[in-house]
Amino acid sequence: MDAFRTIEVKRSIFDNNDRQAEELRKKLKKDKVFLMNLMSSPGSGKTTTLMRTIEALKDEFGIGVMEADIDSDVDAKTIGSTGVKVIQLHTGGMCHLDAEMTSQGLEAMGTENVDLAILENVGNLVCPAEFDTGAVKNVMILSVPEGDDKPLKYPLMFSVCDVVLINKIDVLPYFDFNLERCREAVKKRNPAAKIFPLSARTGEGMEVFTDWLRTEIRSWQEE
Amino acid sequence: MDAFRTIEVKRSIFDNNDRQAEELRKKLKKDKVFLMNLMSSPGSGKTTTLMRTIEALKDEFGIGVMEADIDSDVDAKTIGSTGVKVIQLHTGGMCHLDAEMTSQGLEAMGTENVDLAILENVGNLVCPAEFDTGAVKNVMILSVPEGDDKPLKYPLMFSVCDVVLINKIDVLPYFDFNLERCREAVKKRNPAAKIFPLSARTGEGMEVFTDWLRTEIRSWQEE
Repeated sequence: MDAFRTIEVKRSIFDNNDRQAEELRKKLKKDKVFLMNLMSSPGSGKTTTLMRTIEALKDEFGIGVMEADIDSDVDAKTIGSTGVKVIQLHTGGMCHLDAEMTSQGLEAMGTENVDLAILENVGNLVCPAEFDTGAVKNVMILSVPEGDDKPLKYPLMFSVCDVVLINKIDVLPYFDFNLERCREAVKKRNPAAKIFPLSARTGEGMEVFTDWLRTEIRSWQEE
Repeated sequence: MDAFRTIEVKRSIFDNNDRQAEELRKKLKKDKVFLMNLMSSPGSGKTTTLMRTIEALKDEFGIGVMEADIDSDVDAKTIGSTGVKVIQLHTGGMCHLDAEMTSQGLEAMGTENVDLAILENVGNLVCPAEFDTGAVKNVMILSVPEGDDKPLKYPLMFSVCDVVLINKIDVLPYFDFNLERCREAVKKRNPAAKIFPLSARTGEGMEVFTDWLRTEIRSWQEE
């Protein structure tokens, strides 16, 4: 038997996703739960990055992970092996999560003793960017093999995120990816975005991201 | 001035996309135009693969390319440099093309003297799979850095495509990607799918794909 439950999340019947997202954020604030929404293309390394993040922070914080997938549960199995709380959300073909679906996931997972809740969104650079999930911070991953022109091609995604992780820097020598050109392209879309180059596979650069995350969680809980 | 026009394509006001797609295919058959719909994640190498394909076939066939993007036109510029007919389709935020949008694109591009029309769909493994564009064949690209588990996670995309190109095989040594495991996962979803491993960057394996495409175009025009 798997160590996690799977639930089918249903799209909101209400039309006001932004209001629902605001209400969810207020509830999270009251409950001292920091919700991070992690977005990227398929295969950018969301799950590997999460594994490293959990490893770095699980002794300090209670962690719960919601794995959103169209209908598989391979990632939930991987994350479940770390011992943190995991729930699989099936979107029934939907290409994103909205605030209502996220609320359903949090409720099913349970947030008692959870300081850091992570939503691994559906792998997609288009639709997830259009829906505020109620997260405190949006983090996206762009991996080196995808190319440094992606901020030009998926502008909304790069505008809505607080942090861009540039993953797979260990393979930089084998790809025509210019870190500076990418940084400029992101900044053009989103001057406030933080950009952390790293390799989730080797662990290089992970600390800069987990240090940022630690500070954000603490300030969310204390303020 | 750029060598291509840009049009904003509008979603169909009709609800029956499947019927519209069938009608478009009938028209294409009559006009002897072979429409290939090319889908993949962002950064899998659609444009580089197209460049190689055009190079291999442009002396034999009239080629026209529709570049669908949310709102940029970087790819149309690249493709335009080959001298083939190119049109940029802006989807206005939409994450996919339907048959109506594709028809609008073909009409704006013009199909006189076009044997092979190519639709470069929006980079996304979810939504484009849900809409029949009216194409004669669906081709998708999965690139090595994305991982061999993608057929498990995006089952619909792998079910609707006639061909899966496994791109970036030149970087296989640097990634944990098992070609056989991937092949099995694709076949499980779609036993009829053709699978061609290649590297659009180096050109390795491209011929197997362009040979297949040549045969398909000829048979579509002759039957």
